[in-house]
Amino acid sequence: MSEVEMIRVDGAAIKAQCEAILVGWGMDAETATVTAEVLLDCDLRGIDTHGISLLALYAGWIRGDGFSLAAKPEIERDGPSYGLINAHGGLGFAVSVQAVEMAVKKARATGIAAVGVRNSHHFGAAGYYARLAGRAGLVGLVATSTKVVCLVPPGASKPVLGTNPLAYAVPRKDAEPIVFDMATSTAAGNKVRMHHLKSLPVPEGWVVDGQGQPVTDPHEAYKLVYEPGEGGLTPLGASPHLGSHKGYGLALLVHFLGGALTGGTFAGSVNGREGKPEGDNIGHFFIAIDPEVFRGVDAFLADVEDVSETLKSTPSVDPNRPVMLPGDLEERVRGERLKDGVPLAPALVKQLSAIADELGVPFQLIDKNAAVN
Amino acid sequence: MSEVEMIRVDGAAIKAQCEAILVGWGMDAETATVTAEVLLDCDLRGIDTHGISLLALYAGWIRGDGFSLAAKPEIERDGPSYGLINAHGGLGFAVSVQAVEMAVKKARATGIAAVGVRNSHHFGAAGYYARLAGRAGLVGLVATSTKVVCLVPPGASKPVLGTNPLAYAVPRKDAEPIVFDMATSTAAGNKVRMHHLKSLPVPEGWVVDGQGQPVTDPHEAYKLVYEPGEGGLTPLGASPHLGSHKGYGLALLVHFLGGALTGGTFAGSVNGREGKPEGDNIGHFFIAIDPEVFRGVDAFLADVEDVSETLKSTPSVDPNRPVMLPGDLEERVRGERLKDGVPLAPALVKQLSAIADELGVPFQLIDKNAAVN
Repeated sequence: MSEVEMIRVDGAAIKAQCEAILVGWGMDAETATVTAEVLLDCDLRGIDTHGISLLALYAGWIRGDGFSLAAKPEIERDGPSYGLINAHGGLGFAVSVQAVEMAVKKARATGIAAVGVRNSHHFGAAGYYARLAGRAGLVGLVATSTKVVCLVPPGASKPVLGTNPLAYAVPRKDAEPIVFDMATSTAAGNKVRMHHLKSLPVPEGWVVDGQGQPVTDPHEAYKLVYEPGEGGLTPLGASPHLGSHKGYGLALLVHFLGGALTGGTFAGSVNGREGKPEGDNIGHFFIAIDPEVFRGVDAFLADVEDVSETLKSTPSVDPNRPVMLPGDLEERVRGERLKDGVPLAPALVKQLSAIADELGVPFQLIDKNAAVN
Repeated sequence: MSEVEMIRVDGAAIKAQCEAILVGWGMDAETATVTAEVLLDCDLRGIDTHGISLLALYAGWIRGDGFSLAAKPEIERDGPSYGLINAHGGLGFAVSVQAVEMAVKKARATGIAAVGVRNSHHFGAAGYYARLAGRAGLVGLVATSTKVVCLVPPGASKPVLGTNPLAYAVPRKDAEPIVFDMATSTAAGNKVRMHHLKSLPVPEGWVVDGQGQPVTDPHEAYKLVYEPGEGGLTPLGASPHLGSHKGYGLALLVHFLGGALTGGTFAGSVNGREGKPEGDNIGHFFIAIDPEVFRGVDAFLADVEDVSETLKSTPSVDPNRPVMLPGDLEERVRGERLKDGVPLAPALVKQLSAIADELGVPFQLIDKNAAVN
């Protein structure tokens, strides 16, 4: 399938390598363990852009202003159905786990609760935190602000918003929760980067130029998305006649929840960032809803199974590709990777090896198959 | 612009006509006034599919089972941050106003609250209820289940879901709230019907057939959407390479909130409707969030203005068409229609006249311009 022979690494080794690097960067062991768990979960589910590969990205960021891997989150507001946590410039993973657990606990007491996080950084995959609420038997909703400005509103010539992700989870009876996690852009920036690297035309509708015209040349599209100036990614809907105002409205919703409600920075602001903390100051927002209070959890779970059974028994266009629920594919990949290991690109492994060397921490990403032979 | 000369009717006359017909159908005067207010608001904002024209649609429905216009809603559950109201088979408008007001009151006390409605019918435009929360200074989120099955999941050959609408509102400083209201399908069924009536080709991506292929012939598309069997509307995203799995995931979210959490019927179920009330049994779900508790309402409103100013000052592709926020267009139309009246199609006015005659209530939709001459 892939052009390059991948290195197969056991999940345990990926987790240990993440922990070692994070601790090497100054994170305490407990926070590093929680963070590594989130990264590994993405690698296992095939969400390769949000697994251990993020550490190669963070290696460049952590030298910037306002990034404090040793930060201790502080609960600033704490009420019946709400809370606000100041991450004090730390990475967003562990503080987000703390926030969603706080929301779940409060929702069990009052029916629904929301906890915001401010002054945070990247938190990886939004769906992970929604899943935590789902596993606890609650409906979870997650929104986050973003630092990269790349999304062009309908009719605009330049980007103002980010890919503002939205995730939810719904608990199931005797099964993993249904988990959905989407960027509010038509395609993720990373997909455009992959087309650029492979010189494959970009599907019409992913990227527009400064005149609002679709761009399919992969190298021009890459520049429009990753270099400052005009053009960029389209909101979900791709074009006005296919509903790009809807993706735009959803991107705004995600920023209003993740950014405006928490105090996160609006990265695209024309008014500067007066009164905002240094650094990314990303905001996250977590809502937990207890199905028990509305009609009882058993009735709710039975209805979720009804939806699930109905969709899975819906005739499909291709009999070999049945209709799926959100997260089904990732759950299947997780089963495979727990058995066969996680495929990592040699270039990534080399980067991570260099980071480990520089920090003086053990390199642990050993090829599973090489180790056997 | 339009092929047919429209009849211009004052808002007050539209509201009075709605009230008269609803009372004629057995609704009490107070409920009819609230319902008429919602219908008029849509007519004023140019959301013509969800204004007084709905009465022509309901005239066919109210003879069906489980429709009880005289129903009195009953609060079945009432906790710190939650509530559940049984609409007992009534129309969804007034009970939804009651539910969102209940959610707002609870959210002011606890930070966030959600109120569900079950055993309801159509509630018109979701955005109206979100706006009520926004006007009260809170963030509002609205989801509803639907009775018409017309949305085809990615890879499926037949429809299972509805157009499952999602709406939100965000309060603003000294201005009307930002209000967003979308169907989770690429296009509304009504748009396909308009193309069918005008014999205009349907844009590729709105409708698919039973093999998942896009259909652009307006008459074939109309049949696929409005007749039972294979094919129908696509989820927002239109096709797999433009992200239709995202619109599908959003449509499911809306059903989980509006349907599964409240006990609303899943219209597409393969398992029948055992244990569900007679009739449509539509469920609605309203969330209200108080910005005050997270960081203070002034800081929140200032950040919303920052987003608004930034978007409105973003250079546009066409200088005559500036970048807009959700609801801006509707707000402008409202200003025009308050002055010039609401344009109604003669065929609709004739239908409403017949309904009024049959009920023996006064006909009040007088042409504003004819009345002057």
